[in-house]
Amino acid sequence: MQPLPRYFCISQEIIARIGRGELLPGAPVPSENELIREYAVSNTTARKVLAELEGAGWVRRVKGRGTYVQRDRVTRSADRILGFTKNMLEAGRVPSTKLLGVRRLKRSRSLVVNGRSYVLAGPLYEISRLRLADGLPVMKETRYVSTRFCPDLDKKNLESSLYSMYEKDYGLRLARVDQILSAVLLRGEELASFGLKKAIPAFRVEGATFCGKDLILELEESLYRGDLYRFFVRAIP
Amino acid sequence: MQPLPRYFCISQEIIARIGRGELLPGAPVPSENELIREYAVSNTTARKVLAELEGAGWVRRVKGRGTYVQRDRVTRSADRILGFTKNMLEAGRVPSTKLLGVRRLKRSRSLVVNGRSYVLAGPLYEISRLRLADGLPVMKETRYVSTRFCPDLDKKNLESSLYSMYEKDYGLRLARVDQILSAVLLRGEELASFGLKKAIPAFRVEGATFCGKDLILELEESLYRGDLYRFFVRAIP
Repeated sequence: MQPLPRYFCISQEIIARIGRGELLPGAPVPSENELIREYAVSNTTARKVLAELEGAGWVRRVKGRGTYVQRDRVTRSADRILGFTKNMLEAGRVPSTKLLGVRRLKRSRSLVVNGRSYVLAGPLYEISRLRLADGLPVMKETRYVSTRFCPDLDKKNLESSLYSMYEKDYGLRLARVDQILSAVLLRGEELASFGLKKAIPAFRVEGATFCGKDLILELEESLYRGDLYRFFVRAIP
Repeated sequence: MQPLPRYFCISQEIIARIGRGELLPGAPVPSENELIREYAVSNTTARKVLAELEGAGWVRRVKGRGTYVQRDRVTRSADRILGFTKNMLEAGRVPSTKLLGVRRLKRSRSLVVNGRSYVLAGPLYEISRLRLADGLPVMKETRYVSTRFCPDLDKKNLESSLYSMYEKDYGLRLARVDQILSAVLLRGEELASFGLKKAIPAFRVEGATFCGKDLILELEESLYRGDLYRFFVRAIP
């Protein structure tokens, strides 16, 4: 096998430095001239290093100013049950939650996942919340929770983790979460709820959370900012 | 528990008819007046039925003409290894593939998934293809395949399933596929490659396919039309 090209090795070395936290988000990465000096390479190679880093999304070039480490999007693992709070702590962000509203609804709700219709029988609680990372709104969710499984849920502190409450306060064992991801464009009211003005792409997530063997505990409808989130999935045969 | 409201039961019945294929995509669903007659309900209830179906994305109302069964988006299960061809056949569509280009590249490529950098050492094949469903371009992919595992891949019929080729022609056992999903807005050249003019949301998928124990066979970069695709994921504790 051929040796790896020089520009590629240098870019991998810089990525490793970002990964180890030696270069923090927002920090400048070596400029073209610094790369030429530091690694004794041509300006073509130095340019290729920066193009490689930019193409892979690790850095952002600001015209006339320099090249900076990109603030990485938070990756959400879609294959394990992981609340927002835990996910953000793992990503090194400070999570917080703002309750937008809670209502008791009589009517049932349904969600179709993979051609199967899941019905959550009313009455149920409708809980709308804004989830923030480092004070920035990154996700908005509406969750519909069975009053049968979680009586008096509306009297709890709804700015903390619902998953923890299900398990600790109601003794429920979460069995699985089935979710459908759509790619959408955030506009109008939805956009405004994030404090944004310019339309951005987003993930719309519709899901059903099951407890016990095959009982539906809650249905959810969430919006995740596409510029701040990515989803990780693993497929096996 | 309270009985389910009438409008909800009727909407579920109509969804079941769509699910069983009795009402096909593009077919009209019962109008308000037909619902009133057929189910002996008030016009308020009939209106609620149609609003429920529309809200859940099952039907589309065309002003002054009527209400029609929505062409459903294809759902892609992200938790199992499933080629485009099989996925489309399961969804009742006719899959086809258009080869856009194939090149042999000397340089290596890398992909960062979940903070880990995966390197596919060159030389490798770069294969770009447009994937169609019922003749409509729905996905565009670029796959980078190891020449070590798949020598002379460029001499094969590249308008058929690569997954099948890996397994049948090269005797490789696919172990897992790790993927990162981003929500993006398709514009410019990317949009034009789908034959579209108006920007639409899309999924960008970056992935690594492993064979054997932990060997990287291919890296991929794909775009899935957001208006035609949804991803299904299942999370467990």
